[in-house]
Amino acid sequence: MTKQQYDVTGIGNAIVDVLAHASDEFVQEKGLTKGAMTLVDAEQAEHLYAAMGPGTEISGGSAGNTMAGIASLGGRGAYIGKVKNDQLGDVFRHDIRAAGLTFDTVAAEEGAPTARCLILVTPDAQRTMCTFLGACTQLGPDDVHEDLVKASQVTYMEGYLWDPPEAKKAFLKAAEIAHANGRKVSLSLSDGFCVDRHRSEFRELVDHHVDILFANETEILSLYETTDFDSAVQQVRGKCEYVALTRSEKGSVILNGDDAHHVDIERVGKVVDTTGAGDLYAAGFLYGVTNGLSPLEAGKLGALCASEIISHMGARPDQSLKDLAKARGFAL
Amino acid sequence: MTKQQYDVTGIGNAIVDVLAHASDEFVQEKGLTKGAMTLVDAEQAEHLYAAMGPGTEISGGSAGNTMAGIASLGGRGAYIGKVKNDQLGDVFRHDIRAAGLTFDTVAAEEGAPTARCLILVTPDAQRTMCTFLGACTQLGPDDVHEDLVKASQVTYMEGYLWDPPEAKKAFLKAAEIAHANGRKVSLSLSDGFCVDRHRSEFRELVDHHVDILFANETEILSLYETTDFDSAVQQVRGKCEYVALTRSEKGSVILNGDDAHHVDIERVGKVVDTTGAGDLYAAGFLYGVTNGLSPLEAGKLGALCASEIISHMGARPDQSLKDLAKARGFAL
Repeated sequence: MTKQQYDVTGIGNAIVDVLAHASDEFVQEKGLTKGAMTLVDAEQAEHLYAAMGPGTEISGGSAGNTMAGIASLGGRGAYIGKVKNDQLGDVFRHDIRAAGLTFDTVAAEEGAPTARCLILVTPDAQRTMCTFLGACTQLGPDDVHEDLVKASQVTYMEGYLWDPPEAKKAFLKAAEIAHANGRKVSLSLSDGFCVDRHRSEFRELVDHHVDILFANETEILSLYETTDFDSAVQQVRGKCEYVALTRSEKGSVILNGDDAHHVDIERVGKVVDTTGAGDLYAAGFLYGVTNGLSPLEAGKLGALCASEIISHMGARPDQSLKDLAKARGFAL
Repeated sequence: MTKQQYDVTGIGNAIVDVLAHASDEFVQEKGLTKGAMTLVDAEQAEHLYAAMGPGTEISGGSAGNTMAGIASLGGRGAYIGKVKNDQLGDVFRHDIRAAGLTFDTVAAEEGAPTARCLILVTPDAQRTMCTFLGACTQLGPDDVHEDLVKASQVTYMEGYLWDPPEAKKAFLKAAEIAHANGRKVSLSLSDGFCVDRHRSEFRELVDHHVDILFANETEILSLYETTDFDSAVQQVRGKCEYVALTRSEKGSVILNGDDAHHVDIERVGKVVDTTGAGDLYAAGFLYGVTNGLSPLEAGKLGALCASEIISHMGARPDQSLKDLAKARGFAL
């Protein structure tokens, strides 16, 4: 086994978020599904951007957010994702490196620009996302370096990688390398509609390739085409070493062998923007299990990280999560 | 006189801000003057960006911030400033138009990229700014359209326009058109070091061209090379129709003819980032005097707008200033 250098390597769509406040009426007028992620082409993205309010640009991408959270907790991490060699690509690269992560994926020189996600934050703090995948469609297996995956306790991947055509090959290559080297593979199901698009492949992944699974209630119900949470729990139980199911204000459930641990949400003063809640829950959980916490404590750390991210606009931490966790009594 | 369409047209350096938290030690290590604006070249900007933490991109530029504030109060405004035809230029253009402002300055196709300002926010909420002027150096008198200035009650310009070589010609052309059409000219002195760089020209402007002057304490002391605020007040008194002098936590003083009005600061819960405090004070004051408020009430509106901007990261309003002002009893 290679000497371990990283707690986690994340693979994802490298995206810059453009966040703006919007009314419920605006989301409806634009025909968007509130709370979901919709894929848009360049023209649709331009049309929506022209119509939406003044924005704030913050690096995003589901796995990118998770990795930034792990770094903020003091974890060692690397990221694989594709930007273009353009201004927003520079922003993404700067931010993920400045967070303390290794990021060496070569930028695309040709083709579509760096991906962006137009995020409409409604007054209830819910976010509705429209993603233009841009340069992400150029991520492929050549971008997965064996040494990096070998050197990581966990390789974490977002289900969104199934949307661009080549990225799933990168995912499968990484999973193969990880398991050949005694490492763990983790997957987030990302979004209910994403599960709809790729259900049979995701079931195959969960059955055979994933050691640590993250899903929210909508996603796990979609995976098993049921409306009953307990039924979904019964179906996923035992499929992976850890299954962390997040349920918004109902907290989360962690399945580990025959055990099920219930974790309450962390209460925050004011919920400003729920973008990144799931990503940061994953950050806390992954940091926890790669740094000796019990599954229950790792879940609590996930809940704490999620509570920080929803207290401000954007899905990257606005303060040191390590300091926050220490202040809340975590032994990090 | 042309039929008036705009309350205010603003002319300024069109800049995208890159905000990051930083320690006092970092600001010191980089040899920066805390609280001030330093001009940097492309190489210095790149070096500092590589060293600073993860950022948030928000459209900025002093006059751009002021105009966004006026629009948020319900005012009618236009903006003149130079971006390049690149991704950050698109961001700037989108944001200022989405705020409700007219912005038709043609983007530069060649030369340096859109300007950016690297802003380090220290734990005391103070901001230290490093500006790479980029495409702003291409702003010139041809960008000032006579019809726009004629159609505006006030043309507002930032002292920072004296830094790029050609922009001052745009300023002087606009001032000439404004006065030839019975309109008012307003100037912000921008920054103490900016006053140092251009003191004699700024004195000439104040003496002969400016109807509404904005300065903070450092700037007005620098203009008259004194350490005594009362002495500076005596020297500037009567030079312009209105002089609004902001003094941080000591509030502001408005001189109007023989009258001096004192305005207290608005208290906010928590000061997060002081970027844009002066810009938004100017927004409230200019909206006030172009919409029938007394100088004292206009000053109070300025203080309220400043209090909103320092309660969050970034120098563009994060909520409707009109709603905020109405809730605080302003008759808008």
